[in-house]
Amino acid sequence: MYRNTTCGALTLSDEGKAVKLCGWVQRSRDLGGMTFVDLRDRYGLTQLVFNMDTDAALCQAARELGREYVIQVSGKVAERSNKNPNLPTGDIEILVSELNILNPSLTPPFTIEDDTDGGEEIRMQYRYLDLRRNMLKNNITLRHRITKAVRDYLDGQGFIEIETPVLIKSTPEGARDFVVPSRVHHGEFYALPQSPQTFKQLLMVSGFDKYFQIVKCFRDEDLRADRQPEFTQIDCEMSFVEEADVLETFEGMTKDVFQKIAGVSLQDFPRMSYEEAMANYGSDKPDIRFGMTFVNITDQVQGKGFNVFDQAAIVAGICAEGCAEYSRKQIDALTDFVKRPQIGAKGLVYIKLNPDGSVKSSIDKFYTADELKAIGDAFQAKPGDLLLILAGDKEQTLNALSELRLEMGNRLGLRKPDEFKGLWVVDFPLFAYSEEEGRWHSRHHPFTSPKKSDEALIDTDPGAVMANAYDLVINGNEIAGGSIRIHDRQVQEKVFSCLGMSEQEAEDQFGFLMGAFEYGAPPHGGLAFGLDRLCAIIGGTESIRDFIAFPKNNAARDTMLDSPSVISPEQLKELGIKTE
Amino acid sequence: MYRNTTCGALTLSDEGKAVKLCGWVQRSRDLGGMTFVDLRDRYGLTQLVFNMDTDAALCQAARELGREYVIQVSGKVAERSNKNPNLPTGDIEILVSELNILNPSLTPPFTIEDDTDGGEEIRMQYRYLDLRRNMLKNNITLRHRITKAVRDYLDGQGFIEIETPVLIKSTPEGARDFVVPSRVHHGEFYALPQSPQTFKQLLMVSGFDKYFQIVKCFRDEDLRADRQPEFTQIDCEMSFVEEADVLETFEGMTKDVFQKIAGVSLQDFPRMSYEEAMANYGSDKPDIRFGMTFVNITDQVQGKGFNVFDQAAIVAGICAEGCAEYSRKQIDALTDFVKRPQIGAKGLVYIKLNPDGSVKSSIDKFYTADELKAIGDAFQAKPGDLLLILAGDKEQTLNALSELRLEMGNRLGLRKPDEFKGLWVVDFPLFAYSEEEGRWHSRHHPFTSPKKSDEALIDTDPGAVMANAYDLVINGNEIAGGSIRIHDRQVQEKVFSCLGMSEQEAEDQFGFLMGAFEYGAPPHGGLAFGLDRLCAIIGGTESIRDFIAFPKNNAARDTMLDSPSVISPEQLKELGIKTE
Repeated sequence: MYRNTTCGALTLSDEGKAVKLCGWVQRSRDLGGMTFVDLRDRYGLTQLVFNMDTDAALCQAARELGREYVIQVSGKVAERSNKNPNLPTGDIEILVSELNILNPSLTPPFTIEDDTDGGEEIRMQYRYLDLRRNMLKNNITLRHRITKAVRDYLDGQGFIEIETPVLIKSTPEGARDFVVPSRVHHGEFYALPQSPQTFKQLLMVSGFDKYFQIVKCFRDEDLRADRQPEFTQIDCEMSFVEEADVLETFEGMTKDVFQKIAGVSLQDFPRMSYEEAMANYGSDKPDIRFGMTFVNITDQVQGKGFNVFDQAAIVAGICAEGCAEYSRKQIDALTDFVKRPQIGAKGLVYIKLNPDGSVKSSIDKFYTADELKAIGDAFQAKPGDLLLILAGDKEQTLNALSELRLEMGNRLGLRKPDEFKGLWVVDFPLFAYSEEEGRWHSRHHPFTSPKKSDEALIDTDPGAVMANAYDLVINGNEIAGGSIRIHDRQVQEKVFSCLGMSEQEAEDQFGFLMGAFEYGAPPHGGLAFGLDRLCAIIGGTESIRDFIAFPKNNAARDTMLDSPSVISPEQLKELGIKTE
Repeated sequence: MYRNTTCGALTLSDEGKAVKLCGWVQRSRDLGGMTFVDLRDRYGLTQLVFNMDTDAALCQAARELGREYVIQVSGKVAERSNKNPNLPTGDIEILVSELNILNPSLTPPFTIEDDTDGGEEIRMQYRYLDLRRNMLKNNITLRHRITKAVRDYLDGQGFIEIETPVLIKSTPEGARDFVVPSRVHHGEFYALPQSPQTFKQLLMVSGFDKYFQIVKCFRDEDLRADRQPEFTQIDCEMSFVEEADVLETFEGMTKDVFQKIAGVSLQDFPRMSYEEAMANYGSDKPDIRFGMTFVNITDQVQGKGFNVFDQAAIVAGICAEGCAEYSRKQIDALTDFVKRPQIGAKGLVYIKLNPDGSVKSSIDKFYTADELKAIGDAFQAKPGDLLLILAGDKEQTLNALSELRLEMGNRLGLRKPDEFKGLWVVDFPLFAYSEEEGRWHSRHHPFTSPKKSDEALIDTDPGAVMANAYDLVINGNEIAGGSIRIHDRQVQEKVFSCLGMSEQEAEDQFGFLMGAFEYGAPPHGGLAFGLDRLCAIIGGTESIRDFIAFPKNNAARDTMLDSPSVISPEQLKELGIKTE
C-alpha cells in the first residue's frame, strides 16, 4: 500500500500516529538544521519535517528534492510549534523517517501556484500541469459535484438517463455538422449530433416519459471566444406536459443544485415575455439582479427641433441613480463605450438632475430646463440621478442601451457576483426572418410547436406566430432553452414548408421523425441546459474553458495533443476519401 | 395538467378517486354493453371501462380507438369484479367519464407485445415502437439504474467523474480510428477515441487520484455479431495504487451493483493466473460456475501405438459426471460439435466408465481396460462418468476443449442463468507475437507496465515479460480489463521500441504523454468496464444490442435513420475533401 492517509486529512487528533503519505513537492525551505517540505495531493497540503540532527542523510536527500517531485514518506504526526491557521492541516507536521522518490520532475514550465507565472498558451500546452493548480482542480471537482447533483435530482423525480447515438445521420440543414467517413461504406458519412433532439423526441414516442442525458454535442461553428466545438448539455424531455410543467420541474432542479452545491437559496424565477424583455432590457437574456429598466421617451422628445431625436425610430434611456456628479471624463468614457464598433451607437445624450434641483444636459440647446425635468419625471428620476439616452433605429438602439445598462451595472457594483437571480423568458416568436437569405428561420429549432391559436398564421403571417418556447436566464446568461414540441405530422410539415423545405426534402431528412408522429406520439416538451455555462456561473467566473478538463483553443485546436492533424495516405485510402 | 397519476399507480386504496390518465391503447374488448380498454404507459397497465348504458356516445368513441392511440381519460377508480392478480393495478378499473384522443395511430407494423410478431429487421427500422415493448423498456431502465448505482458507489469512494474530449488526435497505431475532417483546418482531421486511455493517465499526472467516466468510445472495426461501432465504458483510474488496490476497489463496486440492482450477493472473486486459466479451462475468461477442469494426460497416453495421441502436442480432456449412459447419437452430436469449422477439432475420443465398473471407449483397440481405468483415475472419475478427450496442437486443442466444456456445461444445466461468479484473471504476458506481421504486439495496450522484475527482459526476451494486467470475468464474460500503467519515460520508450516504433514515431504519437511522465507522474493504474456487456449480464441475456436504445446493425448501419449516408457536394467542398 502506497499510503494510508492523504495530505488533507491529518489534524491534532492524529498526533503520534504513524502515517504514510504520497504527493508532490509544492515547495521546500532549508532553515539551518531543519528542512521543511510542503507535500501536496488532491486533498491538501501537509508539512513534512526533516531534521539534520536526527538523520543527516535523510535530511540531505530532502534538500535535493525539486519542485513537483513525486514522493512517498513515512513518519509520525506531531504538533506544529508554528501553526498555520489558514490550512486545515496547519496544526500538525510529519516528522519523516523514510523518504522514497517515486518519480522526479523536470522544472515545470510555470509555477504550480494560485498566481502562476505561466501565460495562457504555455498553460494550455501543459494542461496536465495547469490542472494541478487549485483553481482548475476546484473547478473540475465542482463540475463533478454539479453533474452528480443533477443526476440525483432527476433520478429522484423518476427521470431515466438514456444514451443516444453519437454516430448519427447528417442533414443538409446541419451545415455545421461534423461528419465521419465510413470505412465500411465508402462515400457515406455519419454525423456527430449538434444535440440529441430527434432521438429524445423518439424516446417520448417510445413512452419513456421522463428522459435526461448529460451528453456531448458538437458544432463545427465559426469560432467565437468562449465557444467549444464539443460541449456538454443536460438534455431533458417529458411527455404529457404543458409549458408550466416543464418550467416547474427544471426550476426545481436548478434551485436544488444551487442549494446543494453553492448553498444558495434561489428565489422563484419570474416569467417575462420576450416582448417585455426586449422593451425593458433590450435583451432576451436580461440580468435582473438590478433594475435600471429602459424608458421609451420617443413621443416626448420628438418635434422639438433636435434632429438626432426627430429622425430616430426610438429614443430610450436608463436612469443611473446617484450618478449626477459624473465628471466630463466619466461621461466621455461612457460615450466612447457605446460608440465602440461592437456596440455601434452614434453618440450618447445625458441629462444630469443635479442635487440642487438644476439640470445639466448635452441637449441643453434644444430643450428647456422644464422639458428636461419632465423627461426626468418619465424616468421617475430623483435629484442626483443621471439619465443616459440613446436614439436610432430600433434593434440597434435597444441592443446598445442593453450593453450600456450592463456596463453601468458593473460600474455601480449592481451585478453582485454572489447574488443569483433566475428568470424564465417566455412567449418567443416562432420564426425570424433572415433578410440576407430572404427566408424564414426557426428561432429555436424546427421542432418547436406554435401556440395552438397561432397555427393558422403559419401560412399567412409567419412573423406573428408565437412559440411554446422558453429560456432560463441566470444573471444575464442563458443557461437553458427549450420548448413544447410538435407531435403532429401535419403541423410539422407546415413548419418545414414555411422554412422553405420541399416535401421531398422534409421526408428525406426527417421522414423517420414524422413517421414516428403517426404511430401515437404523445404531447411532449423539454429543454437543454448548457452544462459548461452552468458550471461557470455557479463557479463564479465567465470562462467556460476553466470548467473543461481538456478544452480546445479559439481555433478549435488542442495544442497539447496537436490536434487536428494530418492523417496518413493509407488511412485516407482505407476511408475512400481524398483531401483537396 | 395532462394527468394526475400513472397507469401503474392505482390500487384498491384509491377507490372512488377522480383521476386523469394518459397513455397508449394496448388493447380493447367489446363485451355487449361494455367496452374495456387497457391503457398503457411507462409505469403499467390500467383497465378503462366504458358503459353503453351510462354514455352511449362515449362508449361508441371508445370502440373506435385503435391500437397505440394516445388518449387522455378522466374517470373514477372502482373495484374490479373480475380481478387480475398478475397486474399490480389488477384490483381496480377506471369508470371513464371523459375521453380525449391526443394523437391517433396508424396500425403498427408489428404488435407491441412481449411475444411480438415482428422480425428483427422491421423492429430495428421502427425502433421507437420496439422500445415500447416490456423487454426493451425494462432493459433501458435497468441500464439507467446500473449507471446510477455505479456513479453513487464511485462518488461515495471519492472518485470524480471527469469528461475527456471526443475530438482527439488520430495516431497511425489507431488503424481503427474514426476520423473527423476539420472544416476550419482543411486537410486535417480529429479522431474519435477508442478509449480515453491517455487522457485518464494525464489526469493522474494532474493529481486527480481517483477518476472515472461513463463514456462513449468508438472503434471502426470489421464487424462481428454483437459488436457496435460506438460502445460505452465505465472508465476508471487511480493513483498511488498497486494491483491489489485496484482489484479490491472494483470488486467492491461490482458486488455493490449486483446487490443493489439484482439483489445478488456475489462471493469474493478468486484470482487466477492467465497460465492457470489456460491450462485448466483453455480460456482467459473461464466460466467458473462449474468445474469440469481440464486434465492433461499427454504423458500417460503416449507411446501405446495410438497415432493420433502419439503425434499430438497435447492430449487433454474433461470429465462429464454421470454421462456414461450417453447414447451413440449423443456422442456423435458432440463429435460434430467439436469438428465444426469454428472449433476445428479433428475428432473426439470418449471413455465411458460404466456404473457396473466396465469401460467402453472409442480407443478400446489401443488401450487395455486397466489403462482406460487408469486414465479415469487421472480425472478422479467415478463409475457413471464420461471422459471426453481431444488431442492436437496445443492452442487449438485447448480452445476446442474449452468450447466443448462450455457446451457440456450448457447440456448439463451447470451454467445457471441466476448464478453469478466473478473471477480475476491476472499475470498476463505483456506481449504477444504476431506471426502474420512478424512483430510483437501489446496484449493489452502499450501503456501497461511490465512486472518490475521483468523490465530487463523487454530487450532480450519479450515473450517472457509478465504484465501488471488483470481482467474481471463474470460467468465466462470479460466485463472489465485493466493494468497498472507505465509512469516512467524510459520504460515507456523501451516498450514502444519493442513494438517496432522508431523514437521519432513514438515522439510524434505519444510525445505529450511521455513528456507528462517527466513532470512528476505518480504510479497509477485502472481499468475499464464494458457497460453494454455488464448490463446484458445483469439483465440475463447475451445480446448487448437489447440494452442500447438505438443500436446499429451488424453492418454498422442505423436502418431507422438510414445512416451512414451520402452528404452534399457543398458539404464536401466546405470540408475540403473528396470521395473516391
